[in-house]
Amino acid sequence: MSNKIKASIIGASGYTGSELARILANHPNVEIGHITSESHADKKFSDLHPQFAGFVDVQLESAASLDVEDQDVLFLALPHGVSMDFVKKWADMKVKIVDLSGDFRLTSPEVYTHWYKKDHIYAEGFKHAVYGMPELHTAEIEKARLVANPGCYPTASILSLAPLFAKKVVEEGSIIIDAKSGTTGAGIKVSPVTHFSNVNENFRAYGIGGHRHTIEIEEQLGKLLKKQVMVQFTPHLLPVDRGILATSYASVSGEMNQEKLENLYKAFFNEKPFVRVRGSAPSLKDVRGSNFCDIYPYWDKRTGRAIILSAIDNLVKGAAGQAVHCMNLMFDLKETEGLTHIPMQP
Amino acid sequence: MSNKIKASIIGASGYTGSELARILANHPNVEIGHITSESHADKKFSDLHPQFAGFVDVQLESAASLDVEDQDVLFLALPHGVSMDFVKKWADMKVKIVDLSGDFRLTSPEVYTHWYKKDHIYAEGFKHAVYGMPELHTAEIEKARLVANPGCYPTASILSLAPLFAKKVVEEGSIIIDAKSGTTGAGIKVSPVTHFSNVNENFRAYGIGGHRHTIEIEEQLGKLLKKQVMVQFTPHLLPVDRGILATSYASVSGEMNQEKLENLYKAFFNEKPFVRVRGSAPSLKDVRGSNFCDIYPYWDKRTGRAIILSAIDNLVKGAAGQAVHCMNLMFDLKETEGLTHIPMQP
Amino acid sequence: MSNKIKASIIGASGYTGSELARILANHPNVEIGHITSESHADKKFSDLHPQFAGFVDVQLESAASLDVEDQDVLFLALPHGVSMDFVKKWADMKVKIVDLSGDFRLTSPEVYTHWYKKDHIYAEGFKHAVYGMPELHTAEIEKARLVANPGCYPTASILSLAPLFAKKVVEEGSIIIDAKSGTTGAGIKVSPVTHFSNVNENFRAYGIGGHRHTIEIEEQLGKLLKKQVMVQFTPHLLPVDRGILATSYASVSGEMNQEKLENLYKAFFNEKPFVRVRGSAPSLKDVRGSNFCDIYPYWDKRTGRAIILSAIDNLVKGAAGQAVHCMNLMFDLKETEGLTHIPMQP
Amino acid sequence: MSNKIKASIIGASGYTGSELARILANHPNVEIGHITSESHADKKFSDLHPQFAGFVDVQLESAASLDVEDQDVLFLALPHGVSMDFVKKWADMKVKIVDLSGDFRLTSPEVYTHWYKKDHIYAEGFKHAVYGMPELHTAEIEKARLVANPGCYPTASILSLAPLFAKKVVEEGSIIIDAKSGTTGAGIKVSPVTHFSNVNENFRAYGIGGHRHTIEIEEQLGKLLKKQVMVQFTPHLLPVDRGILATSYASVSGEMNQEKLENLYKAFFNEKPFVRVRGSAPSLKDVRGSNFCDIYPYWDKRTGRAIILSAIDNLVKGAAGQAVHCMNLMFDLKETEGLTHIPMQP
Repeated sequence: MSNKIKASIIGASGYTGSELARILANHPNVEIGHITSESHADKKFSDLHPQFAGFVDVQLESAASLDVEDQDVLFLALPHGVSMDFVKKWADMKVKIVDLSGDFRLTSPEVYTHWYKKDHIYAEGFKHAVYGMPELHTAEIEKARLVANPGCYPTASILSLAPLFAKKVVEEGSIIIDAKSGTTGAGIKVSPVTHFSNVNENFRAYGIGGHRHTIEIEEQLGKLLKKQVMVQFTPHLLPVDRGILATSYASVSGEMNQEKLENLYKAFFNEKPFVRVRGSAPSLKDVRGSNFCDIYPYWDKRTGRAIILSAIDNLVKGAAGQAVHCMNLMFDLKETEGLTHIPMQP
Repeated sequence: MSNKIKASIIGASGYTGSELARILANHPNVEIGHITSESHADKKFSDLHPQFAGFVDVQLESAASLDVEDQDVLFLALPHGVSMDFVKKWADMKVKIVDLSGDFRLTSPEVYTHWYKKDHIYAEGFKHAVYGMPELHTAEIEKARLVANPGCYPTASILSLAPLFAKKVVEEGSIIIDAKSGTTGAGIKVSPVTHFSNVNENFRAYGIGGHRHTIEIEEQLGKLLKKQVMVQFTPHLLPVDRGILATSYASVSGEMNQEKLENLYKAFFNEKPFVRVRGSAPSLKDVRGSNFCDIYPYWDKRTGRAIILSAIDNLVKGAAGQAVHCMNLMFDLKETEGLTHIPMQP
Repeated sequence: MSNKIKASIIGASGYTGSELARILANHPNVEIGHITSESHADKKFSDLHPQFAGFVDVQLESAASLDVEDQDVLFLALPHGVSMDFVKKWADMKVKIVDLSGDFRLTSPEVYTHWYKKDHIYAEGFKHAVYGMPELHTAEIEKARLVANPGCYPTASILSLAPLFAKKVVEEGSIIIDAKSGTTGAGIKVSPVTHFSNVNENFRAYGIGGHRHTIEIEEQLGKLLKKQVMVQFTPHLLPVDRGILATSYASVSGEMNQEKLENLYKAFFNEKPFVRVRGSAPSLKDVRGSNFCDIYPYWDKRTGRAIILSAIDNLVKGAAGQAVHCMNLMFDLKETEGLTHIPMQP
Repeated sequence: MSNKIKASIIGASGYTGSELARILANHPNVEIGHITSESHADKKFSDLHPQFAGFVDVQLESAASLDVEDQDVLFLALPHGVSMDFVKKWADMKVKIVDLSGDFRLTSPEVYTHWYKKDHIYAEGFKHAVYGMPELHTAEIEKARLVANPGCYPTASILSLAPLFAKKVVEEGSIIIDAKSGTTGAGIKVSPVTHFSNVNENFRAYGIGGHRHTIEIEEQLGKLLKKQVMVQFTPHLLPVDRGILATSYASVSGEMNQEKLENLYKAFFNEKPFVRVRGSAPSLKDVRGSNFCDIYPYWDKRTGRAIILSAIDNLVKGAAGQAVHCMNLMFDLKETEGLTHIPMQP
């Protein structure tokens, strides 16, 4: 009998679901149990995603009628607002849950409702949900039953600024995060936003001043600083499939120089296997397909401002990879197990 | 005998040169005289740029030995450092010059040398060179003999911030310009920077804290405010051919709201035919191939900051189109003559 | 009072409609009358297509209730199956019609029904519809009241092979046309086929063995040869916005060599202003945004086969530009009037 | 002491070299020994390819002075014409060699010189070199000391046609292979061919009638048919990083239908783990980053022709992956060992 972790993917028609399968199918300690899709329950997973032919050919099931008793962990790759129903339904079972939606990332149902314009049906969940960013919350994740996997923009943004906030050397009103994401962040569902000729050879900002990920960034940075934080966050849509590059600007308090800044970052991310503090600006392809976050902290002595560049693959470190990283911690595995993908470049 | 303006293009092997030809060949008041290229003087222009076959098939010449006596205007599409030689050489002739290089954009040879790391051989030129941004300097351009055509990033950046500086409602230390450009800004010369697989599906920042266009922006905004200005300017390389999108952040002094901000921009650009102040975020393709600068000023009441999005085609409004606009002013033509290209979308 | 041709665009929400507007708005002999859109009749044209702000801001109307009495020409940019309704409705009026759909391109309603899997409601139309390819049917187009504008693939394919068929030097069973098109050929409507991440960094064949454009090519080539023709036609989807490149393979009868082949093509397209017979392989950008078809006929003496490369912009020569070319002929204007766009490269 | 295979990569500055490292670094039975680069021998591998930071940081060495005595296998990722020098130099040592250049793929030095326009300095090598296509030559590869790894286009082309030739159901004069490749096939060296704006939004054919891979295809298909074969092969350059799609056309002898054709392909590739015979047209992303070749054989009953679509990742199945596959066979490992990468889509 297998000692492998039985893991199921709830919601596999989208990019996050298929990326989970890409990682889990090759994870040495995992056996994929169920994969669900409400709209394609009559098909095999590889009918939907032909790249998996010969690897993951399991029959898709409906989540509604799924028996999860024998599973060890569930990855919920569902839209926000839908995920909470299933979290609630499975809350009292022994199965652990990593929820990749935005439903349990914030601190309260009230904040959720304000930013997501939606009522929350499971306030209880906020009490024990752990924000699944291993670089900040290792111990809590190890003990968690419900992990709220971070958003893609927040992952790139928070990691790029966490050292400054944790060390309290930042003027918190000064933060501007100008972030750029590939289109897979907008999902697999067709819409004018992701119509080829609207994205290709094009570039634009969106959600200016009001994107939901703003509050997620503010809450996490606020926890580090132990006071409320407000940031300026502007997302943009890049004509690429994968990747987020965040350019963060911060005024710092006290003396600073390039060496000091770099050391501060290196010390903070010491022993964090998926953050690479670098001496030059990262590009998206330096991390594509991998669970890395590459960070370059730059001190502009002319203007007296820190500029921090961070790059992730939004589907890996910004979603499925980080979720599997959390699973590794929850099941006492080596942090990097099953996550040793070398970035695909070119 | 033709009454058309005789215009020559000096340096036609690159993108700026070919874009000048694209515009001038269809300009109703212009007759293209000479086109030069040092490295291809044995070919026809359309051998170099096959898209022009049947339109512009003239024999290329060497600039060194060119007789420009009979020309009315010369467009210099040469690298910086090279352009100054020709400007000096032709300075005392009656021919007017629009220089598209960076050689005469700044206020003095000293500033030039500091930012371009290069000596200047024609200090005299700075005295009569006019910065060729028609929205700011119409009257001077009309009388100019030597126009220094603005850089591409400065065009998008200055236009996006000029109203705030001209009206003196800005906290000048707060300016952050996060700019993104297509690769034609890096020119036609092959290099790892513009190797397909280094750009495609990729994105990165470069020249962080030290890009030459910074000082050009600072000088022009400083003139509007009548005091020295320092801005944070970060360029990024987009995987697209054409276009610059600048996302500018500014703290303002005094009361502000969305309506007031929009009105301020609309008033400033009133009667400026190539700036379109909009009510939503522009994308690169909204202006591609045209001489427009589309601007969306947004007031974030939550953070108390103005965010201004501006989009141009770097080869048109950011180079050849703006140069022809200057020519129209210098020769007393209608501002929009020969520049009525509708953006090519998709 | 204006002597300009009053032209209306019926169906302006798509790419063909907006490309017609891009061309007609700058056509010196045309005044745009009505522009219709059933789904957006409450908006201005530039609300739908913001690149037109300041150029074409007319209120959209509904085609159903349109009064076309005072118009000289109507461009129908409607889906096939819809277009025939309007052609029938306006058939007896004095207004001329250029139909850009596939409804009247074939020789009979029976052939139409076989390939389009749809009944035809206006068989009468086939009697007087003229196939609008000016290089083959100039005289008929000049006298036409109803022009069926060619499909995009057929334009590139037929032009690349017409000289061989007209001169009857081809083995007609040998024709293989391997064609590649940008995604605008699939239209503006969102679908998985044109979802960014399904197209970007990707490439595939589709419609293998059964694409509707096959019969259009076969009928036109058959007319030239005066016998029935069967061709192998395989379309592919390129990750670019615009452009079709057709690689056509043909065995020829009789002696052939490179010079003879080139001369045959040059003679056939002599005085055809929009076909450029070249001595090297064309690329999509050599014609992008223009009404050109660039053709390179190559004789492979090793295999004894002719390989012909042809490139067009599918939205211009493959749609709107060819339609305006037809209009120029129908109204006795210079063929190139309003169509002098130089290809936009890069 | 490790029982792992000691493998070195000779020539690691290019795409093939880095792709070998990507695969070998995660291969459970391999230990990377040396990595060489003549132009960067002073750097670490990850300085050159930053995506490898933390994975492969070994110091680069010069191949000229390399001691290969203790190595088990060498992967030569060198340009053709250079590779033969090293193959000759190391020919008498016990180390096995997989040569990824074109130097030993053909049947004789004479054929090589004719197609590569270059003398061959090591004719001896042709006697024992084995063409490293595991689907055709498993037994020979298992015993080989020198494997000539197939070219990228030949891999896609030969696999798509091998069943028809092996079963002798093809009219061999009828073969047309219209192939399209991503730009990494043109290598990492900068040139106008791979300059971003020359490739992006563009598409063209090249090497028409004379590409070197033609003879490689002809020789291998000829061996299957046991007679000389001539094919028409036309490569095209796609604006994507990775992937080859070959569209092959063949007239067949005897009766054929869709079912029979599919069965013929399925039987031929039975037990071949990296060929997936499919029921629909493959796209590049279905195989990207993986060692798969996806093939769709289609019977066009209207024209009586077989059309075969095949897709590979040119850097994996078309280069580094196939090389490692050969290594697995040469060292008696499971064929798929270290090659279980699931295609990265999107």
